[in-house]
Amino acid sequence: MRIETVLENRINALQDSTVKEAMRYSLMAGGKRIRPNLLYTIVKGYGLDEACADDFACAIEMIHTYSLIHDDLPAMDNDDLRRGRPTCHKQFDEATAILAGDGLLTYAFQVASHANCPSDKIVRCIQVLSEMAGSNGMVLGQDLDMHENLHSDWEYVRKVHKYKTGCLLSAPLMMGAILASKEASVVEEWHQIGIALGLAFQIQDDILDVELTSEEFGKSNSDEKNDKKTSVSLLTKAKAEKLMMELYDSVEQKVTSFDDFQASEFIEMIEKLKNRRK
Amino acid sequence: MRIETVLENRINALQDSTVKEAMRYSLMAGGKRIRPNLLYTIVKGYGLDEACADDFACAIEMIHTYSLIHDDLPAMDNDDLRRGRPTCHKQFDEATAILAGDGLLTYAFQVASHANCPSDKIVRCIQVLSEMAGSNGMVLGQDLDMHENLHSDWEYVRKVHKYKTGCLLSAPLMMGAILASKEASVVEEWHQIGIALGLAFQIQDDILDVELTSEEFGKSNSDEKNDKKTSVSLLTKAKAEKLMMELYDSVEQKVTSFDDFQASEFIEMIEKLKNRRK
Repeated sequence: MRIETVLENRINALQDSTVKEAMRYSLMAGGKRIRPNLLYTIVKGYGLDEACADDFACAIEMIHTYSLIHDDLPAMDNDDLRRGRPTCHKQFDEATAILAGDGLLTYAFQVASHANCPSDKIVRCIQVLSEMAGSNGMVLGQDLDMHENLHSDWEYVRKVHKYKTGCLLSAPLMMGAILASKEASVVEEWHQIGIALGLAFQIQDDILDVELTSEEFGKSNSDEKNDKKTSVSLLTKAKAEKLMMELYDSVEQKVTSFDDFQASEFIEMIEKLKNRRK
Repeated sequence: MRIETVLENRINALQDSTVKEAMRYSLMAGGKRIRPNLLYTIVKGYGLDEACADDFACAIEMIHTYSLIHDDLPAMDNDDLRRGRPTCHKQFDEATAILAGDGLLTYAFQVASHANCPSDKIVRCIQVLSEMAGSNGMVLGQDLDMHENLHSDWEYVRKVHKYKTGCLLSAPLMMGAILASKEASVVEEWHQIGIALGLAFQIQDDILDVELTSEEFGKSNSDEKNDKKTSVSLLTKAKAEKLMMELYDSVEQKVTSFDDFQASEFIEMIEKLKNRRK
């Protein structure tokens, strides 16, 4: 996969250190690479060469990986397994995991700032990346997630998903539109597509979480362990499945409605996501 | 102070949340604001209006604050006091402190990316910020610091200071030169000035740490508590003081050697730093 080579190159460019090894350990753990692949799919759908997206694809995957490292920490979700391997703080130690997360987040912006494209596009992409990842975006979602309580209803959990998952799926879509020189209103449409996709994706995670054992899923079944409220527990599994399918359908309809966007590869990717079993 | 108002404005622009309150708690705790003030001093020395540096001044202070929050965590230095108040994880909790650090680091790049200046300068400043703060800079310094051991000599500790302290003092100097449209070689000279200043500053911290009690210093006397190697323990206090003065002198000589830079305010700031008692 293109993104693997690009990530490997970028991580190799760093000075050798323990924190670099921890960054590499988590970054090169063979995740699904959904976010970089979404970005590549958008730029290709707009008729651009995917090379223009390499640095931003790296940046979004680094931000995703840092969020997993910090989310797995004992003070947060306290997970021991991630993608079938020990989590970063289990493989190294807590301090190194905190630093590896900080290093990946910072390096994401460094890599993005060195992208081989005009400065005004770099600036717009960094605006989107930082807003979607930060305390008006994913970090806010983590915060809301931690403050979920007995009284949290589906509207609350939906908001958690919007920020915690949706924003970081919106970022590659919005950056793709920026790289294709689309106007702000189109970038905002992709933002909303990402939010819908994130909600669908998260509901699917909830469903898979009750269907699969911890071993099959490759990570600890932390929802049940932590008594978390999910779409399944709040809506019933049948209603959650229905909502998920409606969301995926709305995404597919929306992307096929753009005049200048070749949606076939994007649709194919959504179909694969829909059919994933982990 | 100008920076206080600017920071207050930027933090107010965020959505209300617990993580925002934790970010504000640590950011608005009345630190010395050395890094933003260095930046303002550089742009004024080059004859520019300081307003052009506001967003980058915020960014560097946010990065400095995030590094303190994460450094104070139980898994790192485990400090209870910072600037005479409970550390972020003591005032809130560990998870919130981790997120507040992540939020500040991300917001630093968001604020920088929205600076009111040409895109190519924004990109250059973000390149410098991210390199100086990341795993080839400050994060590397933290990593080296954690791996200090019985055999670490002064050369090792010096390297820790170069990355952990020097890089984040270099960043505002380099950004000031970039905003003043100076060529790369001049930006690099400011980089080296920052490294020297960081070393002088850190040696001074070591000296103050043995001279002052925890109460006077406003933070825990963690060096002694953690048996850390310092310039004082490795070189003797007399030699550490001599080296510190030499470094401060070299910085003052260097900045007065630039043809187009009005150094008087910068020198005044260095003199104040030299004479600080905490």
